Amino acid sequence: MVTGTAAALEAVLAPIRDDLEGVEAELARMLRSRAEPLEALIAHVSRFSGKRLRPALTLLAARMFGDLRPEHRTVGAIVELIHTATLVHDDILDESFLRRRVETINRRCGNETAVLLGDYLFATAFKEAAALKDRFPARYLSDIVTVVCRGEILQVHHRNDPDLSEETYFRIIEDKTAALYAAALRCGAVLSGAPPEQAEILEAFGLRLGCAFQIIDDILDLTGEESAVGKSLGTDLDKAKMTLPLLRVRAKASPADRARMRDAIRAGTREAREALRPLLREYDALGSARATAEALVDEARTLLETLPDTPERAALRQAAEYVLARDR
Amino acid sequence: MVTGTAAALEAVLAPIRDDLEGVEAELARMLRSRAEPLEALIAHVSRFSGKRLRPALTLLAARMFGDLRPEHRTVGAIVELIHTATLVHDDILDESFLRRRVETINRRCGNETAVLLGDYLFATAFKEAAALKDRFPARYLSDIVTVVCRGEILQVHHRNDPDLSEETYFRIIEDKTAALYAAALRCGAVLSGAPPEQAEILEAFGLRLGCAFQIIDDILDLTGEESAVGKSLGTDLDKAKMTLPLLRVRAKASPADRARMRDAIRAGTREAREALRPLLREYDALGSARATAEALVDEARTLLETLPDTPERAALRQAAEYVLARDR
Repeated sequence: MVTGTAAALEAVLAPIRDDLEGVEAELARMLRSRAEPLEALIAHVSRFSGKRLRPALTLLAARMFGDLRPEHRTVGAIVELIHTATLVHDDILDESFLRRRVETINRRCGNETAVLLGDYLFATAFKEAAALKDRFPARYLSDIVTVVCRGEILQVHHRNDPDLSEETYFRIIEDKTAALYAAALRCGAVLSGAPPEQAEILEAFGLRLGCAFQIIDDILDLTGEESAVGKSLGTDLDKAKMTLPLLRVRAKASPADRARMRDAIRAGTREAREALRPLLREYDALGSARATAEALVDEARTLLETLPDTPERAALRQAAEYVLARDR
Repeated sequence: MVTGTAAALEAVLAPIRDDLEGVEAELARMLRSRAEPLEALIAHVSRFSGKRLRPALTLLAARMFGDLRPEHRTVGAIVELIHTATLVHDDILDESFLRRRVETINRRCGNETAVLLGDYLFATAFKEAAALKDRFPARYLSDIVTVVCRGEILQVHHRNDPDLSEETYFRIIEDKTAALYAAALRCGAVLSGAPPEQAEILEAFGLRLGCAFQIIDDILDLTGEESAVGKSLGTDLDKAKMTLPLLRVRAKASPADRARMRDAIRAGTREAREALRPLLREYDALGSARATAEALVDEARTLLETLPDTPERAALRQAAEYVLARDR
């Protein structure tokens, strides 16, 4: 990770560092198990532990409208648990072997165990949400998980579809990725008694942030180095997913180059990834996709400006910077 | 299905036939979706529609302690939805192609879609539970799903383990199968305001009923005809699962026969299933396993006798008969 990315992330996390430790403690409590083989699986999955960006969003949104309470940390942990469950299942779908520099569960223990462990993590998240005094998180987050699944199902349905529209692409990424960012923010705000319209502004901010995040992810999947990113890359092509850079090549390319692109996608190999590079360059497809991510981040920042000017708002601005800094 | 089985099932379902139609209506409402491709998947999965035994248990337990309310039908539908989600994921684990005479989702649409559809069904169940006025079902059923997953993970962990103990075998089937029967009953009773100790008796009844059900299932997997049972069979052997009949062979067999059995399990083929037949016969392993199922059903019936003598109690007695009638 280069300095720009690290600095942007640090600016997001610094104001809530202590509370994020509280989220870790909550995660540890939720996943405590004395029973083998579950214990070993959970120990392994906790090695995927990422940047905790989603719980950070929950805590920042919450503190924008009041003091943090233990419940906020619990909801942050629930959001992270849902995210972890989707990662475990995504790695089955993508046949990924590497996640945050660690073997995936499907690689290590087989698809069966990965399916069941993901189910266990989802159920644990719902159980913790159902135990809260406030009923909003359980109702809202269970609905959001149906949205995430709907987006992923739509994506699988459109594999090998060279005619995928941009409209459907955006529906997919909004549902499968951005909805959980938006939910992390809105949950934090609602739990702090934020005015409904301000909670909805944070939700709208999260949707744009999440879509930008996914577009940068799609760019990295085509151009990144596994050693730098720390997870299996090229899986979009392996799975013949049309992502935004490819949609932009399709929109601009000559008929001959469009045919070349389709062949490369259909081949779906590492070599195909190489064959796409000149096309991506020729039509500035990565630049075009990145410009869309930047425009989304701009919209997100503009939304923030309508909210109270607090240190948390400044940290959320940094979250927007961080999303764009990821592909440098 | 022979007459004995059908008659026993009819005696369970007849008293609540109208209310089970209400459960169907609730399921249809919960799964309404105007979005392709989800709509087509849900239409397919609804063809798995089984005997609705679990919702029937919820309704019978509920009516034992009061009049049925719409909430009871909703909880019955939630329990069935959870069961359906586990079936969709189980068919991935077992690589089954046939479920209730219909192609499984993994066979029809691939493992990816099956993983996501199962997740969607779980999340929909939790969302419906979270929407209920009474908080008990959401809290209890989310916990039960963690138990079911724990049991399944333990089972996968002990594949290819010829030394699996009977104790662990019973822990697996109690968690993966019986816990949801027990929960279906207890939820119904609690929602009707049953005295806690009577709700717990129904739960204990359900655990025994569910374990007996699973033992009979294990026997059918070794001896049944797919055309009669309507689902993929022999998958236990394909997946090198030690089930109760095999544990009974192991307990009684000569060293030479034990070695023969291990070889057959390791081979894990249809021919191996044939090779096991003489061993199962020689040591009366199916009879021994069936006797255990009968003993569990006896215990279950004895528990029922401590409950109020109502038509619902009589129907639950029939449920116990039905479980044993299934392998004739």
